[in-house]
Amino acid sequence: MNYQMIRYVLGQIMKLEAALMGFPLLVSLYYADEGMLPILSVMLPVGILGYILAGFKPKDQAIFAREGFVIVAFAWLLMSAIGALPFVIGGEIPDYIDAMFETVSGFTTTGSTLVPDVESFPMSLKMWRSFTHWIGGMGVLVFALAILPAGSAQSMYIMRAEVPGPTVGKLVAKTQITARILYGIYIFFTVMEALMLRLTGMRWFDCIANACATAGTGGFSVLNDGIGGYHNVWVEVIITIFMLVFSINFNLFYLLLIKRFSDVLHNVEIKVFFAIYAVCTLMITVNIAPMYKSFSKALRYAGFTVASLSSSTGFGNSDFTQWPGFSQTLLILLMFCGACAGSTGGGLKVARVMILLKSGIREMRRQLNPRLVATVKLEGQSVDSEQLNTQGSFFLIYMVILLVSTLFLSLDKYSFDVSFSAALTALNNMGPGLGAIGPYGNFAQFTPLSKLVLIFDMLAGRLEIFPMMIAFMPRTWKKA
Amino acid sequence: MNYQMIRYVLGQIMKLEAALMGFPLLVSLYYADEGMLPILSVMLPVGILGYILAGFKPKDQAIFAREGFVIVAFAWLLMSAIGALPFVIGGEIPDYIDAMFETVSGFTTTGSTLVPDVESFPMSLKMWRSFTHWIGGMGVLVFALAILPAGSAQSMYIMRAEVPGPTVGKLVAKTQITARILYGIYIFFTVMEALMLRLTGMRWFDCIANACATAGTGGFSVLNDGIGGYHNVWVEVIITIFMLVFSINFNLFYLLLIKRFSDVLHNVEIKVFFAIYAVCTLMITVNIAPMYKSFSKALRYAGFTVASLSSSTGFGNSDFTQWPGFSQTLLILLMFCGACAGSTGGGLKVARVMILLKSGIREMRRQLNPRLVATVKLEGQSVDSEQLNTQGSFFLIYMVILLVSTLFLSLDKYSFDVSFSAALTALNNMGPGLGAIGPYGNFAQFTPLSKLVLIFDMLAGRLEIFPMMIAFMPRTWKKA
Repeated sequence: MNYQMIRYVLGQIMKLEAALMGFPLLVSLYYADEGMLPILSVMLPVGILGYILAGFKPKDQAIFAREGFVIVAFAWLLMSAIGALPFVIGGEIPDYIDAMFETVSGFTTTGSTLVPDVESFPMSLKMWRSFTHWIGGMGVLVFALAILPAGSAQSMYIMRAEVPGPTVGKLVAKTQITARILYGIYIFFTVMEALMLRLTGMRWFDCIANACATAGTGGFSVLNDGIGGYHNVWVEVIITIFMLVFSINFNLFYLLLIKRFSDVLHNVEIKVFFAIYAVCTLMITVNIAPMYKSFSKALRYAGFTVASLSSSTGFGNSDFTQWPGFSQTLLILLMFCGACAGSTGGGLKVARVMILLKSGIREMRRQLNPRLVATVKLEGQSVDSEQLNTQGSFFLIYMVILLVSTLFLSLDKYSFDVSFSAALTALNNMGPGLGAIGPYGNFAQFTPLSKLVLIFDMLAGRLEIFPMMIAFMPRTWKKA
Repeated sequence: MNYQMIRYVLGQIMKLEAALMGFPLLVSLYYADEGMLPILSVMLPVGILGYILAGFKPKDQAIFAREGFVIVAFAWLLMSAIGALPFVIGGEIPDYIDAMFETVSGFTTTGSTLVPDVESFPMSLKMWRSFTHWIGGMGVLVFALAILPAGSAQSMYIMRAEVPGPTVGKLVAKTQITARILYGIYIFFTVMEALMLRLTGMRWFDCIANACATAGTGGFSVLNDGIGGYHNVWVEVIITIFMLVFSINFNLFYLLLIKRFSDVLHNVEIKVFFAIYAVCTLMITVNIAPMYKSFSKALRYAGFTVASLSSSTGFGNSDFTQWPGFSQTLLILLMFCGACAGSTGGGLKVARVMILLKSGIREMRRQLNPRLVATVKLEGQSVDSEQLNTQGSFFLIYMVILLVSTLFLSLDKYSFDVSFSAALTALNNMGPGLGAIGPYGNFAQFTPLSKLVLIFDMLAGRLEIFPMMIAFMPRTWKKA
């Protein structure tokens, strides 16, 4: 284990997080609110400590898969541990585990909240909370790669562990260039969304906060009543569009950029994603129409909610825990599926679900004809047997974490559907669940043990399971 | 597709079922109850039709995997369709879909019931209902193999598709001998249980019915209050022991028979199974002890219920839907896991869960070191990559059926936990679920659509997924 490199990268992360806190600090200066002291009292020591830790480069900069996983897991834990401090110091979330939960929910772009009254927060801390979504959306380590001096070729290990989805497209040879392009696209769409929201008459602060939360497919809102609180259909339409935009594999935007239109047109995952969106929206609209006594109102709520859960954002414009069982179950299924690979969205990812389903069909064909050599293909490329095994194992470990977490959560006072949906929403970085933890519900009532379990699940989900599992596996720390 | 062989085997099945109905007919004669007419009016035409269909042997007796799956799926559907008729004709279950549900629940050894008052049934039909568990437990086709003249070597395809668990042990070369040995062991333990129950003072009728239901790990009871209705702790202890006995891989009993004791001692699956039993019983006892204000009472209920759900029997001596969320969630996890491979029990099977978990751990090791050639071992034998793929795909298809079924069931009036546990309990051939379908609940309130979905799930679960999926896949029926 290359401890020196871990020390060095974590130092860089601390420097970076201190720098990123400059944004809420500016907000605090602008509004002259009480957030300044809590932010500064974290920013300065963290920045200094970061400079010390990252001050001298290790001689041996070689890192391998093992270090990659450990660095990613620790970086996210450290970022959350630091990011939670301003809320504790400011007194907005006095309990540290609570603050950690909220911050992990932010960085992992889950959006589950335990804050009963976010409107009472100082503007700066409200912005910091929403900004964590933006930071976490693309991955802070990818960000580090983009702005830091070019690292070794092994930085691929970090990127592979952090970017969501079964594969990282090899569009450009150098990770640093890839990272910069991805961040360029990310910033472009965030700015676009903020500007469009501004056209609806929303104040600038809310435009920026909501754009950050949408870009990361997070779900934190600056209003207690969520996006529904704006009572503006255009706001909902714009956010629906951008939730879907941020659910798309970013490689496709890059392909558009370099005018490889036919590659985009032939992409299967995006077609499946939008087909799922359309079909589910339609089914839920029909299912809830009698409740709202109007097809258009039902369509408005269904279209927004399906986009919100397909993209794993978790914004709410209506309380789906009041919907009929069919709609709720369909939303649970959408939580499993999630967004496209290589986007900021969560869930199993459409591409992975497609690979899994195709391998299931292949297995049925093989049962009929054991000598059959059928390959699973996705986007024109065949997925080999070992890769299928990896995806199968991924799904299995995912289910094990889901069920074991549900068991731990069931020690709490809630019924099975709440425990199960809490674990599911955390592991898929969605936000809301069923019953007491719906879009207008709250995670505050869980015990500290349950909150720790959910923190693990959120991080495991955001980092695609393996880094969190591997970082805490004894074998990882054994000498080779 | 060898249609002639399908016709021939289905004819044999009809003959066999008519013969098996002789048992409830005897019961009817003994008690002189109203069951005689309904039974006779099914037995005779089915027997005659069976003789006609199986009357002339096909020239080409070669069957392959394709025919094996189709025969197994159709045989079980046909058996259930016929077995349901006496209930409809007798007027005990007037609706045909209801009667089909009850009979499929019987043959698949699920034990979910929609009969509100089974005590009002004629004795003969009560016995037929419990007897379906016994018939279905070992598999009627295995039974056919055991008593019919030795078939072709391809009868292995039938056995492989019908016997529960990831592998069929090749203890003896000929399937027919294997089938006879298995049935010998099965009959021996059934008789043992009936005799032991008799010692508690239970009347003979109940002894036989309960022994049949335990042997098949079914769960139908002849009392409305289930096994708890006897209010006898010895009855519960005896049944607990036999539920566990029938959860063990039958190959182990055969190994005992031929004195290969060390093979039995080194079997890992059985150790894991009993470890799970002990740990879960202990945890639930502690969890429910405050409810019953007595540790011994809690142990009695927990020990019985855990055995009931680990073995997938589904007998009840207490209403676990009133237990705390933790116990209920643990029972849900037990439903996933199920009994040992090669037993009459349901669920994923302990051996399969072990293979899956080991392949998950292997995958994490491979993430650290992609060139690692680690094999997954079970019972000293290595499981190859293709076999891992098969088990992974099995789990995936299982989860897809579970979730899609939940979605269909959610069209019904129940909440998510009831829909989900209904699909889970059907697919794992357990019996009871959460909420309204608990051990003292009832499946009668589901819509016909939901009942059809559950019928599919019960059959898919009993036949280890593939036969039901493959028999209804268009590709199966295409010309090669």
